[in-house]
Amino acid sequence: MKVVTEFAELMSRLEECRRKVDEALDKWMPREDEIPSVLHKAMRYSVFAGGKRLRPFLVLESCKVVGGDEEKALPAACAVEVLHTYTLVHDDLPSMDNDDFRRGKPTCHKVFGEGMAILCGDALQNLAFELLATKLPEQGVSAEVALKCIAALAQATGSRWLIGGQALDITEQAKGYSDRSPEKVSLIHERKTAALMQACCVIGGLIGDANEEQLNALKNFGYWLGLAFQITDDILDEIGDPEKLGKSVGKDKQQKKLTYTMVFGLEKSRQMADEAVKKAVEALSIFGNEAKMLRILAQFILERQS
Amino acid sequence: MKVVTEFAELMSRLEECRRKVDEALDKWMPREDEIPSVLHKAMRYSVFAGGKRLRPFLVLESCKVVGGDEEKALPAACAVEVLHTYTLVHDDLPSMDNDDFRRGKPTCHKVFGEGMAILCGDALQNLAFELLATKLPEQGVSAEVALKCIAALAQATGSRWLIGGQALDITEQAKGYSDRSPEKVSLIHERKTAALMQACCVIGGLIGDANEEQLNALKNFGYWLGLAFQITDDILDEIGDPEKLGKSVGKDKQQKKLTYTMVFGLEKSRQMADEAVKKAVEALSIFGNEAKMLRILAQFILERQS
Repeated sequence: MKVVTEFAELMSRLEECRRKVDEALDKWMPREDEIPSVLHKAMRYSVFAGGKRLRPFLVLESCKVVGGDEEKALPAACAVEVLHTYTLVHDDLPSMDNDDFRRGKPTCHKVFGEGMAILCGDALQNLAFELLATKLPEQGVSAEVALKCIAALAQATGSRWLIGGQALDITEQAKGYSDRSPEKVSLIHERKTAALMQACCVIGGLIGDANEEQLNALKNFGYWLGLAFQITDDILDEIGDPEKLGKSVGKDKQQKKLTYTMVFGLEKSRQMADEAVKKAVEALSIFGNEAKMLRILAQFILERQS
Repeated sequence: MKVVTEFAELMSRLEECRRKVDEALDKWMPREDEIPSVLHKAMRYSVFAGGKRLRPFLVLESCKVVGGDEEKALPAACAVEVLHTYTLVHDDLPSMDNDDFRRGKPTCHKVFGEGMAILCGDALQNLAFELLATKLPEQGVSAEVALKCIAALAQATGSRWLIGGQALDITEQAKGYSDRSPEKVSLIHERKTAALMQACCVIGGLIGDANEEQLNALKNFGYWLGLAFQITDDILDEIGDPEKLGKSVGKDKQQKKLTYTMVFGLEKSRQMADEAVKKAVEALSIFGNEAKMLRILAQFILERQS
C-alpha cells in the first residue's frame, strides 16, 4: 500500500512538472507562425509529442533537494528536454535507427521530410544552449553558474558522451554487432542514456547552489538512475506493451542490437536494474526526507511499463 | 599598386590567423584515438579540410579593433569555425544539398557515411558551445561576457537565422523555387550567411570590451560583409574556376536555386556586391587605422576567386 501511495505522489509531482515545463516551453519556443514556419512547426511537433519530461523533473528535483528555488531552474529543465528531443529526432532518421513511430506518433522525418528533420534537430540543440544562456540569467541565476550549466550540458552531450554513444552504436551496427561483450554494452549505454541524466542532476544541483558533497551525490545518483533506466528500456523492448510504449517493440532483437537483455538475458538484466536502483538510492544517503521524490522515482523506474 | 600591397598584407594576416586557430583547434578538439575514434576522425577530417578561416579572422580582428587582446578571443574564433563546419557537413548531406565535394575533398558523408556525418555535425555544433563555455574563462574572459557570446552565437545560428535560412531554402526547393522575388532571396541569404558573420564581429567586440557604439558599428559591418560575401559566392558559382573553388560550379543554376545572379542577373549582382562592400566600409567610419584590415578584407571579398 505504501508503494502505491508513493507512486501516486510521484505521478502527481511528475504531472505538475510536465505542466510547468510545457507552459515555459510554449512561451520560450518560437511560435509556429514565425519564419520559417515549417521549421518551427517541426520543432513544436517534436517537443510537444507527449514525453514524460523525466529529465526536466530531475533538474527541478535536484535543485530542490539542495534547498534551491525550482523556478530558477526552469530554463534548464526546458533546455534538457529540448536537447533530449533533438537526439530522438536525429536517432529516428533513416540513416540512423530508421524509426517510423515515436511516442505513438509518426516521427519528425515522416511528417516533415528528412532534410527538415535534420534541421529541426539542429535547431533544438541550438535552442537548448540559447535557453541556458539567455533565460537562466533572467531567472536570477548568476553568470558563473549559468556558464557551468552550459559546460556540463555540452560535455555530457558531446562527442565523448551522448553523441559518442550513438556513434559507437552505428559503428557496431555496421560490424553486425559481432562484439557482444558486456564492456561494449556498457560503453554504449553509459553514453547514450546515463550521461544526460547525470548532467540533469548536476545542473539542478548547480542552480540550487549545491556544495561539493551534494553535487557528487547527485552526480552518482544520476549515473545509476540513467543506467537503470536504460536497462529497463531494453527489458521493455523485449516484453513491453507497444500500446503503452507508443512505439514498436522487439526491434532491438530483430536487429540483433547490443542491448542488456540480448547480452545478459532477461533475468540477469532485471537483477542489474535492481542493483543500479539500489546504488542510485544509496547515493542519496546524505540527504534526508527532501530526497524522497528522487528515491521513489528510482523505485518507479523498475516498475514502469512505458 | 597600393591595392596589391594591401591584399598581400591581408593575406599574411589571414595566414597568421589560420595558423593560430588551427593550432588551437588541434589542441582543443578530441584526438582521433579517443573513443569513439571514427567520430573524432570525422570531426577532424571536416574541420581540417582547409578553409580560409574567414570567420575566426572576423572574431580576432573585431576584438583588436576595439583595443582587445586577440589571445582572449581565440576560443571564440575556434568556436565559430567549428560551428560553421557543422553547417557545411549537414548542408552537404544527400537530403539537403547533396554535395560530393567540399574544399576539393570528398564530403564527410562520402567518407564516413550518412549517419556518422549527421553525428559529426551534431558533435561540432556541441563543441562550439563547449569551447565558449569552458575555454573563454580560461583565457581570462569574464563569465558575463562569455555568456553574452554564447547567447549571440546561439541566436545567430538558431531556427530564426542560420538554420532558418537553410530551412527556407529546402522549402523553396520543394516548391521548385517558383517564388523568385528579390525579397525571398534576401530572406534566405541574410540568414544563411550574413547572420553568422555578423555574430563573429559582435563576439569579437564583446570580448574586446567594446562600447555600444563600437558594437553597433561591428554589427553593421558584419551584416554588409556577409551579404557581399554571399553575393560574390553566387557570382563565383556562375563564373568561378572549380579548381580554385575546390567545388563544382554551375550547380545552383542547374537546380534553379534562388541565388542573386539567378534573380538579379550577373551585372546587377556585381553592383549589389559593390554597394554592400561600400556600406560595410562606411560602418567602420568611427574607427581609425586600427580597422584597416577589416576595410581591406571588405575590398578583398569583391575580388576573391575562391
